[in-house]
Amino acid sequence: MSDKKLFPAWVAIDWGTSNLRFWAMSKQGDVIQQGSVPKGMAGLAPNEFEPTLMSVLEPILHPSNPVHVLCCGMAGSRQGWHEAPYVTTPCPPPDQSIGVDVPTTDPRLHVKILPGIKQLKPADVMRGEETQIAGVLLERPDFDGVICMPGTHTKWVHISAGEIVSFQTFMTGEIFALLSKNSILQHSISNSDWNRADFTCAVNDAVSNPKTIAAQLFSLRAQGLVGQENAPDARSRLSGLLIGLELAGARPYWLGQNVILVGEEGIANAYLDALTDLGAMAEILPSKDITLSGLKFAYQKQKEAAQ
Amino acid sequence: MSDKKLFPAWVAIDWGTSNLRFWAMSKQGDVIQQGSVPKGMAGLAPNEFEPTLMSVLEPILHPSNPVHVLCCGMAGSRQGWHEAPYVTTPCPPPDQSIGVDVPTTDPRLHVKILPGIKQLKPADVMRGEETQIAGVLLERPDFDGVICMPGTHTKWVHISAGEIVSFQTFMTGEIFALLSKNSILQHSISNSDWNRADFTCAVNDAVSNPKTIAAQLFSLRAQGLVGQENAPDARSRLSGLLIGLELAGARPYWLGQNVILVGEEGIANAYLDALTDLGAMAEILPSKDITLSGLKFAYQKQKEAAQ
Repeated sequence: MSDKKLFPAWVAIDWGTSNLRFWAMSKQGDVIQQGSVPKGMAGLAPNEFEPTLMSVLEPILHPSNPVHVLCCGMAGSRQGWHEAPYVTTPCPPPDQSIGVDVPTTDPRLHVKILPGIKQLKPADVMRGEETQIAGVLLERPDFDGVICMPGTHTKWVHISAGEIVSFQTFMTGEIFALLSKNSILQHSISNSDWNRADFTCAVNDAVSNPKTIAAQLFSLRAQGLVGQENAPDARSRLSGLLIGLELAGARPYWLGQNVILVGEEGIANAYLDALTDLGAMAEILPSKDITLSGLKFAYQKQKEAAQ
Repeated sequence: MSDKKLFPAWVAIDWGTSNLRFWAMSKQGDVIQQGSVPKGMAGLAPNEFEPTLMSVLEPILHPSNPVHVLCCGMAGSRQGWHEAPYVTTPCPPPDQSIGVDVPTTDPRLHVKILPGIKQLKPADVMRGEETQIAGVLLERPDFDGVICMPGTHTKWVHISAGEIVSFQTFMTGEIFALLSKNSILQHSISNSDWNRADFTCAVNDAVSNPKTIAAQLFSLRAQGLVGQENAPDARSRLSGLLIGLELAGARPYWLGQNVILVGEEGIANAYLDALTDLGAMAEILPSKDITLSGLKFAYQKQKEAAQ
């Protein structure tokens, strides 16, 4: 057994609004160490990013040799550590070659931040998701089709020949959270079991009549007050109405396309159910550490280009 | 000048979620005194309603003679003072004859609470608005058409031959408040001047493509981030998107109908603009004290019936 300490060849960083996640990587592409701290962009002034990063990296860095740090996410926004201006569609997922160098105090840190992507018309942006897309392309290099990333702001992304051709963001997850926690509907929403039939029915109602969504939402409250028998489960129905509305609007993205869903298990399964019911061809790509895959993709691209 | 004190013949009460408003009325139907206190249903236990009412009425009541109190609003909900169960559409606006007697400790109080109205299919409810509708009918006894009441939960009400035939509630106002104050869009919303052209454009965008509403909403955020020149005013556009979505869904209510708008000036004007642009026939009924008119209507009906 050797007591020789293994130092990272490079460090992958996903620095979002709420958390900093890091993976210290060996030359061979293995994870030597990983961790997460709740120190996201939202709570940091620009001059606090480097000390925060050093507080997690110091114990694992070589005492004198520099280390490459490749970072994606909100740390690259205008309000973050150092702005990495958006690149414009159509474009491949950003790799290290277009990463923005970040000046640091500690000479051992060679930091690059990957830019987000913007679309001019219709106006849209992503920052962080482009690296998850890179992760999908690392695992499926020849994928042509659509990636759907359900979440707070669900992204639909059209991929062709390794490029992001166009994308569209729906505020579905954020609207679900606001309605279920902060609106009058909170009184109707229980933490009951998921009801697949009620969800499916609501998806269909929203798809067939999207324009009355604001009335269908109030009905969730009213059905309890009028003493409706066999009233559907309000949480399943709320989720179905909002996902159904989105799928009606996103039809040009999924119709006749291969759809890969990337997201947390519960929400990805709900989208898969709804898409399948509507006759779409969709599959879930397990997304654990998909951002790490994307950072590997971006790091390797640069290495390949240098060879 | 007489120093004889004038005691009310009856008292009209609008007891909502947040406030208690009262009007002490003479036999001739004039307001002797009026007032409002921030003691709504949301902050009161059932046994606190009578003391709250007496704290405002005690100074103006006759020391021994009883007084009729006619009350509408959330005080009649299950969580209020005393439940006045919903009556079911189709029905005329409730009058005193179907008001629910409330037991009181003070023998001078003869309190009745007016019920709200429910619709079984599609499930819908109102409590308080039925009295505003009665107010419209007091001022326009022969009105046949549609009353639209914009607000937190906008109501569309079909009136025929003095009856409420059907109605539909849209959560538009509550969704506007949540998105403009609690969502990511809050960063894009300024308190700038109202832009009528941006509002109209957004109404049309929502009417022509209601199913992509959740994407059009995110674009409000993105248009600022991509540096779009001449970007529309986000508040005007947010309002236009949500009102346009509602008008698309409420079309069966307003198409080819006489529409009376009842609501606060700013929001009623926005609905009037949007409806006019869509070719509807709408007018605003000034709604100051429309609830008092409705309570007078409900009180008189009973008097007429007794004659």
